[in-house]
Amino acid sequence: MDPAGFTPYPLEQVHRLIEPGPVLLVSTFDGQRANLMTNGFNMPVSHEPPLIGLIVGPWDHSHAALRESGQCVLAIPSVDLAEQVVDVGNTSGRDTDKWSRFGFTPVPAATVDAPLVAECFANLECTVADDRLADNHHLWILRAERAWIDLGRRGAGEFHHRGDGTFSANATTVDLRHRMTKWQYLTQP
Amino acid sequence: MDPAGFTPYPLEQVHRLIEPGPVLLVSTFDGQRANLMTNGFNMPVSHEPPLIGLIVGPWDHSHAALRESGQCVLAIPSVDLAEQVVDVGNTSGRDTDKWSRFGFTPVPAATVDAPLVAECFANLECTVADDRLADNHHLWILRAERAWIDLGRRGAGEFHHRGDGTFSANATTVDLRHRMTKWQYLTQP
Repeated sequence: MDPAGFTPYPLEQVHRLIEPGPVLLVSTFDGQRANLMTNGFNMPVSHEPPLIGLIVGPWDHSHAALRESGQCVLAIPSVDLAEQVVDVGNTSGRDTDKWSRFGFTPVPAATVDAPLVAECFANLECTVADDRLADNHHLWILRAERAWIDLGRRGAGEFHHRGDGTFSANATTVDLRHRMTKWQYLTQP
Repeated sequence: MDPAGFTPYPLEQVHRLIEPGPVLLVSTFDGQRANLMTNGFNMPVSHEPPLIGLIVGPWDHSHAALRESGQCVLAIPSVDLAEQVVDVGNTSGRDTDKWSRFGFTPVPAATVDAPLVAECFANLECTVADDRLADNHHLWILRAERAWIDLGRRGAGEFHHRGDGTFSANATTVDLRHRMTKWQYLTQP
């Protein structure tokens, strides 16, 4: 019997419920050229050190570059870039220079060989901190080594993949900092 | 020298950029009583099997119940519940029955001992599938065993923690399913 008030939801669509973190562009460098991919499976793992979980598998052309270089850049696009970002995610770097094709501009990073993405309002230079789940779950624990924000576009706002080709942008902000009594340190400006 | 157009962003606030996945309530059962906690560090790990990454550490009272039972329920609240959800996250289950105090109603689940949360529009019954990163990174790989949606509140919409006590609700939906040429199977209704 179903729990009161509930109907079964398809297991293979669970990610549609869980996924809506920010859509990312992942930039890599394989020693010869830079590539871009789109990613919706990511999360923060720890505040300090700043660790991020990211799913990149062998079905992604960027996988080899990430594995071999141990580096990448996570770039956060705002919703006005949604069409180009989706196109990046539906084209393979195997045969396409996605930077020039979709109008993204590589900018040299400070600590990694992969370039930042000029059009994105934030860029995080990352190294692989833990790859123990990389074989089984294609899950990479990254450490942010440097983080960059475009102050002119600071409030540009990320968007979220709903897992099915639809995306949501953010609207209302709900300020509940006064209720963060236990985690007050997180609310510091 | 900073990359052109960019200013350094504080490393300890990187999670504010990456975090905005859905805020979750995590329900556990320790053999004697059910508890609730609030979580913003989560992501999908795999479509099939439906795996979800979740950060729960020893600083959370729910940690022991998750570790010992190997089970939990992930419940997705909509933005109208934001105040209660934040209060759950700022109160410890060590000394409080958060269900009654904050107006959440436990509903027996089908496959796990932890209860669903009646007020949440979706509930996922989960078991621990991989705990290899639980000691180092407090990262649990969960497998969704059952998923439930409240059809009457299906479009209620989750909200996202910005990592500092402010939260964003979703607004505009951008439908780019027609551009999902490579991943077309994901767009099936």
